Amino acid sequence: MNNEQTPIENSKKELETKLSVLQQKITQEKIPIIIIFEGFSASGKGGAISSLILNFDPRGFTVYSTRKPTKEEQRLPWLERFAEKIPAKGRIAIFDRSWYSGVMRQYFKENMAEAISRLEDINMFERQLNDDGYIIIKFFLDISKKEQKKRLKKLLESEDTSWRVQKRDLKNLKNYEEINDFYKNMLKRTDRPNAKWHFIDAKDKKEVRQKVLETVAETLEAAIAQKQNPPQPAVPEKPFINVDFKLLPAPKISTLDLTQPLEREEYKVKLKALQKELKDLHNVIYRHKVPVIITFEGNDAAGKGGSIKRLAAALDPRGYSVIPVGAPTPDEISRHYLWRFYRNLPKDGHIAIFDRTWYGRVLVERIEGFTPQYRVMQAYNEINEFEEMLHNWGALILKFWMAIDKDEQLRRFEDRQNTPEKQWKITEEDWRNREKWDIYETCVDEMIKYTNTDFAPWHIIESNNKLAARVKVLTIVIDAIKKKLGIEDKEDEEE
Amino acid sequence: MNNEQTPIENSKKELETKLSVLQQKITQEKIPIIIIFEGFSASGKGGAISSLILNFDPRGFTVYSTRKPTKEEQRLPWLERFAEKIPAKGRIAIFDRSWYSGVMRQYFKENMAEAISRLEDINMFERQLNDDGYIIIKFFLDISKKEQKKRLKKLLESEDTSWRVQKRDLKNLKNYEEINDFYKNMLKRTDRPNAKWHFIDAKDKKEVRQKVLETVAETLEAAIAQKQNPPQPAVPEKPFINVDFKLLPAPKISTLDLTQPLEREEYKVKLKALQKELKDLHNVIYRHKVPVIITFEGNDAAGKGGSIKRLAAALDPRGYSVIPVGAPTPDEISRHYLWRFYRNLPKDGHIAIFDRTWYGRVLVERIEGFTPQYRVMQAYNEINEFEEMLHNWGALILKFWMAIDKDEQLRRFEDRQNTPEKQWKITEEDWRNREKWDIYETCVDEMIKYTNTDFAPWHIIESNNKLAARVKVLTIVIDAIKKKLGIEDKEDEEE
Repeated sequence: MNNEQTPIENSKKELETKLSVLQQKITQEKIPIIIIFEGFSASGKGGAISSLILNFDPRGFTVYSTRKPTKEEQRLPWLERFAEKIPAKGRIAIFDRSWYSGVMRQYFKENMAEAISRLEDINMFERQLNDDGYIIIKFFLDISKKEQKKRLKKLLESEDTSWRVQKRDLKNLKNYEEINDFYKNMLKRTDRPNAKWHFIDAKDKKEVRQKVLETVAETLEAAIAQKQNPPQPAVPEKPFINVDFKLLPAPKISTLDLTQPLEREEYKVKLKALQKELKDLHNVIYRHKVPVIITFEGNDAAGKGGSIKRLAAALDPRGYSVIPVGAPTPDEISRHYLWRFYRNLPKDGHIAIFDRTWYGRVLVERIEGFTPQYRVMQAYNEINEFEEMLHNWGALILKFWMAIDKDEQLRRFEDRQNTPEKQWKITEEDWRNREKWDIYETCVDEMIKYTNTDFAPWHIIESNNKLAARVKVLTIVIDAIKKKLGIEDKEDEEE
Repeated sequence: MNNEQTPIENSKKELETKLSVLQQKITQEKIPIIIIFEGFSASGKGGAISSLILNFDPRGFTVYSTRKPTKEEQRLPWLERFAEKIPAKGRIAIFDRSWYSGVMRQYFKENMAEAISRLEDINMFERQLNDDGYIIIKFFLDISKKEQKKRLKKLLESEDTSWRVQKRDLKNLKNYEEINDFYKNMLKRTDRPNAKWHFIDAKDKKEVRQKVLETVAETLEAAIAQKQNPPQPAVPEKPFINVDFKLLPAPKISTLDLTQPLEREEYKVKLKALQKELKDLHNVIYRHKVPVIITFEGNDAAGKGGSIKRLAAALDPRGYSVIPVGAPTPDEISRHYLWRFYRNLPKDGHIAIFDRTWYGRVLVERIEGFTPQYRVMQAYNEINEFEEMLHNWGALILKFWMAIDKDEQLRRFEDRQNTPEKQWKITEEDWRNREKWDIYETCVDEMIKYTNTDFAPWHIIESNNKLAARVKVLTIVIDAIKKKLGIEDKEDEEE
């Protein structure tokens, strides 16, 4: 071995040491990093990744290899399998092919509308991650048709490597020009200041590696500098909502009569009939593979639990789940706030009932100051985008706000306090929240105002009378499912 | 509606209220509950589950419907997909068909040896859960062939229900007698005091529901009583190890010379050659679909990270993962301690590298008193069982203990303390652990003694010289893989 090093080798060595130090710093600064490798078959993505991670402590990164979605994954929103893999703060996720492959797949199926809609989803997804502090580094490895042919041929020559070449790779070679056009278009549409594409001529593998290492080092350095001296973000007076969202008018809670009449005898009869109807509809949902998302928010002691129980009682236990949402766990708090909800979405044909939701972002997190105000102001739009994505996927989204007035809450709190078997339901925190009644009311009104979209409208449930509230919830769920499935009430009666 | 209630209805009502109260109590007492429904097709499992959960708060339970394992699940140990679903303390998991269906599937494939081995796995799995405080309630719903035929026929008659009858159900009807024999055998083999089968004649659906409700209520009551007045478990003087495990002799750490010579120049040459060899072997592992589990434990600052890095550097990033194991998260701490490891097992053909492991149970948890001593004493055998299960699945298991002596540790701690870019690596806790050097040494010797099985032996790495340690780790990994794959060194040289 030659112990003398040329200047270039020296600088390579320096670069490697630098990357190793940078990884420690991003861990300390708790910056989450996403690095994506896309490009033609045989363009050397694997090799580039290998040479990059050599410089990192393997405990701090994960490499994800993207393949065709499994059958299970196909039953979820297409972005879900990627969203669930976003790194925790301070960690690095490296994607060997990524969400962009999901676009290519649609393109190959000649499903251009879906391909383009996915590009829009991607821009939304990456922007939301950026806004939350994620650093996204995207590489595209480019080779010519001639080079690709040469490389595939070489792989096929040896038994040790031939298994790596798939039918699809050969098909792609044949369609090189067309694919190339599509790639260029895709890169153009998804190149944004905070998630730039690094387009690399991948003919010379050594150059690729050098370019990748340099780019990662530069980006991490800039990210650390920015984290250490963060710009002071302006807090807008009101949230920015994309004009494409059609917001429906909504009443202020205080203008509603929260006490709706319903006698117990009538309630029993109605409840039974509604539960029977919902039970039958659940079968239809299952067969039509419609995903249903039902979310509950409301004042403390407003009766969310009771309504969920009556709803669940009508459903086939194999086709629904109830997701209780409490304070986030450390895993959850160290990622984008929508992460834990992505992970609990229903499969198509299933129903997910959320007991508290992503709206915690603009309620408790806003009021208690857990989240900076400028991020809260971004949340309304982010949530609309999230729900629109679910809607476009085909989901029925039903959002309930269970509303009681201040006197009714006091009665219920005292009842809980005074009834031994109910005492577990009431905590100090409930009383503390109660002191913030007015600020909560303002925040709820604003939440409804800014997220009352036509595809995911709010349903305010007057809940001073628990029985009336439960019946109203069930009625709304049933009507919405029928509308979604195109079932007319008339037909229903004929059955 | 008739408002008068018969005594039976009254007692049904009482039972329902009781169950609701019991659920609250098990939440408060943090008791995890598993309820299993098995039985013939059309025996009414779904209905029984529905009537049971009506009495529970839907936020406190989850129903899992067991189907054929997905392709992804088939690449993991067969119990994994169930192990990952065990409930957190205070929650109820209800299985509509369960791990027992995995046994039936093997039986139908006429794979009797595998079916019987799975029954043994089940007994191990359920016992380990029991010993950890899990309550397991198992129902078997029995119907006659005549009754089954009648029910399937009825389901087939209506368009609304015919889709529920699958080809398999009709095939099962045809083979009723044979299946019945197998079921009876299965029940007998897996009926144990702490996980009894409740065999229910399921002809009368009302009776089934009554029986299920009663049994669950009785079992929960007993569990709560026991939790409130726990028996004082005797702490054995030494662990019980199943005699079937062949424990290999192992030296005490203190008898070893932890300083092995290796010069840097020689190290460089060796490392390069070993990494090249491992790289090639990784391809073979992938093609032969062998799962590989490599675990690292060792003294603080013994160089686990450095060895992992050199190992990882030789591997294709798409085929391995490094799992850093720290203090358990709340989700992890509220379940069986092996849960978080089940969830991180490699798929077949992949390599999982654990940086710290399940052995924390008999090291830090033992020493710091996080786990009661009688549970620690059970852990050695539990871990052997866990590893044997992985071995039987086909995994290669490599366990490393990285050993340095007390002086060497001091040198490394001081070096970390005095080098700015290494300071993050050393914490107060490291110094506190160091004070417990002797007790750690005793515990490590015992750990190795009781878990040094022939299928998953320990490899003690003398690590005072980091370079020698890394080379030894790589050499052992390579030799073990070759042995597992049946690759002779001779053949290798001919290549």
